[in-house]
Amino acid sequence: MENFRFYSPTEFIFGRDTQKDCGKALKRYGAAKVMIVYGSDRIKASGLLKEIEDSIAAEGIEFCEYGGIKPNPTAENVYGGIARAVSEGVNFLLAVGGGSPIDAAKGIAMGAVYSGDFWDFYCGKATPAAALPVGVVLTIPAAGSEGSGNSVITNEKTHQKISVRYPFMLRPLFAIMNPELTYSLPWFQTACGIVDMMAHIFERYFSNTPQTQLVDAYSEAIMRDIADQALTLKLDGENYAARADIMWAGTLAHNGLCGVGKEEDWASHRLEHEISAFYDVAHGAGLAVIIPAWMKLCAERNPDKLWRFAINVMSVNPAGKETMEIIDEGISELKNFYHDLGLTTSLRELVGKEPDIDMMVESLHRNMGDTLGCYVPLSMDDCREIYKIALEG
Amino acid sequence: MENFRFYSPTEFIFGRDTQKDCGKALKRYGAAKVMIVYGSDRIKASGLLKEIEDSIAAEGIEFCEYGGIKPNPTAENVYGGIARAVSEGVNFLLAVGGGSPIDAAKGIAMGAVYSGDFWDFYCGKATPAAALPVGVVLTIPAAGSEGSGNSVITNEKTHQKISVRYPFMLRPLFAIMNPELTYSLPWFQTACGIVDMMAHIFERYFSNTPQTQLVDAYSEAIMRDIADQALTLKLDGENYAARADIMWAGTLAHNGLCGVGKEEDWASHRLEHEISAFYDVAHGAGLAVIIPAWMKLCAERNPDKLWRFAINVMSVNPAGKETMEIIDEGISELKNFYHDLGLTTSLRELVGKEPDIDMMVESLHRNMGDTLGCYVPLSMDDCREIYKIALEG
Repeated sequence: MENFRFYSPTEFIFGRDTQKDCGKALKRYGAAKVMIVYGSDRIKASGLLKEIEDSIAAEGIEFCEYGGIKPNPTAENVYGGIARAVSEGVNFLLAVGGGSPIDAAKGIAMGAVYSGDFWDFYCGKATPAAALPVGVVLTIPAAGSEGSGNSVITNEKTHQKISVRYPFMLRPLFAIMNPELTYSLPWFQTACGIVDMMAHIFERYFSNTPQTQLVDAYSEAIMRDIADQALTLKLDGENYAARADIMWAGTLAHNGLCGVGKEEDWASHRLEHEISAFYDVAHGAGLAVIIPAWMKLCAERNPDKLWRFAINVMSVNPAGKETMEIIDEGISELKNFYHDLGLTTSLRELVGKEPDIDMMVESLHRNMGDTLGCYVPLSMDDCREIYKIALEG
Repeated sequence: MENFRFYSPTEFIFGRDTQKDCGKALKRYGAAKVMIVYGSDRIKASGLLKEIEDSIAAEGIEFCEYGGIKPNPTAENVYGGIARAVSEGVNFLLAVGGGSPIDAAKGIAMGAVYSGDFWDFYCGKATPAAALPVGVVLTIPAAGSEGSGNSVITNEKTHQKISVRYPFMLRPLFAIMNPELTYSLPWFQTACGIVDMMAHIFERYFSNTPQTQLVDAYSEAIMRDIADQALTLKLDGENYAARADIMWAGTLAHNGLCGVGKEEDWASHRLEHEISAFYDVAHGAGLAVIIPAWMKLCAERNPDKLWRFAINVMSVNPAGKETMEIIDEGISELKNFYHDLGLTTSLRELVGKEPDIDMMVESLHRNMGDTLGCYVPLSMDDCREIYKIALEG
């Protein structure tokens, strides 16, 4: 285990009806004027926005709205939000939704108190010195952004999708998490969220750091539960216990707990970011395509953790089997799981045409340099190979 | 799962040599003058105190010392610390050691900014409105106080040992955790710490709250790892990986993560507190006596979670066995584990004479009222029965 710092100061307010406490939480954290950041009008139609606004008004806090955040939130979303936050003079941002409005709110939070271009913080030209405080009402468990210091923004002009991590600056002060708010999610979004949160654990689990038994053991327990509850939800989308476990697992998957003391990988995420930067696909759906292909390429070069994953998470019975057989079975089981969720594992099927692999690899090279990840350090040729393996799925 | 709030804002600074960053951490958190709270002179002899003081001085922060905190920290320790902190005008407390100096520092933190008697906060006469900030350098993994909002103080005058929990007030701002600092712990203290941290999970795991699959699964993973690493440490006390897992597990066992959404029990802890309030025994050694007896009494009345514990944590093979047989085997395995650690499970052997059970039950009744716990709500007759079962062990 390597030295680490773990800092997760977000207050998680979890359970039924907790959105009604939104105003009280904002008051406790010193909000005077709030900008509510959200995506589609679904939260208006469902009555959630009104419920939240009522609870804010009840505390005598002023607020304005900033909607229209896209599913892969764009730099344009952030620029617009910064302008609005500054002109309205807000001192607090409340993101309502999933990872997209939360990530956009984090970008706005940094940009609103910075004299330069907020994109400087994403392209590596500057480090933020301050940010507006952010609170969250979570409606889509997936990105884990409610408990992380991360933000991913897509710059449509430059075709870049860049993730930043400022754990001491960007963690939300509070996150309100009512599993009932996720009952009405379309199944596809539920499924993509499940793939994404499991992937957040994969990126930390597949590591060469030795002697990480405790963190690996609880990571495996969380992964097994996600897989189990996912199948329950497929049959019964209003199963509170399953919705609650998935929601809490999504937070634990990405608040750092599963990565303490370990070198992290993140190659799969970066390989996927190129897909969703160029094609109109959901991040989770892209991961379902990339991850089995990534595992396939890594299997020969670094089998250890894939072997352990197959047995301890995918429940492959190792009796009488060779290592590679066990790993292959683990990958097959994972693919079956994705198929059970209704997702494809074929890149060609996902993007609906022959994808331009050269273009994606070139962009990856431009964004990430010569190598990617660390469980198996990938050359650009390896990345090309992974996209090719993923073609058929 | 019940609604919950989870708030663990402590910054954990974990790994080799991290005690050298103590001054920097204090600086970041605004310390101007620090009182270092500790127990025995062991930390002087080992050179740790000097290392810490050098790092504080290097940041230009003033400090004073307050040593002599007892293993079960007393109200006298706290009164003395309050007087010292006020007369020195400190604005920060740094506890160095295990749960005892940390718990004492928390008592001092509340008392130093309160015009009344700090004991008001423990006996339920008042709720704290403020407290000095507390930082920690942990040297004994056990109590989990480095990440909790709890403090346990013994009032020797009234023979009361009372635990309070103020999760939004008493959590340390940071905890420095270097597993190497625990290499030199006597084995008995290591063993008692291991029993204590497992018990912190037991108190949350044995619960009647339905549908808590995720939290139970990761709790079981942590308990299994504690048991496994404990046996490694018995053979090799300087095994870094095992020391690191035990240290991190001790924090996770008590920072609230294993109790989210669950009704908690705490009967075993309260039964034990009477033993260490009247007899000179270590808390962990008392728990090793109480817990198997508590399990024995609960087995018939509420077998479900004990059955699950036997199989999932103590690795009892359930094939062809009745429920009670499985539970009995689980309890036996737990006793064997305590014996392997070198601890007795006999109350008589622990206190070295015939214990005064009536006196302990009377005191328990005075402190806790008519019933105790919730997994099986215990009458005072049940408590007497548990002490009796524990006599032989």
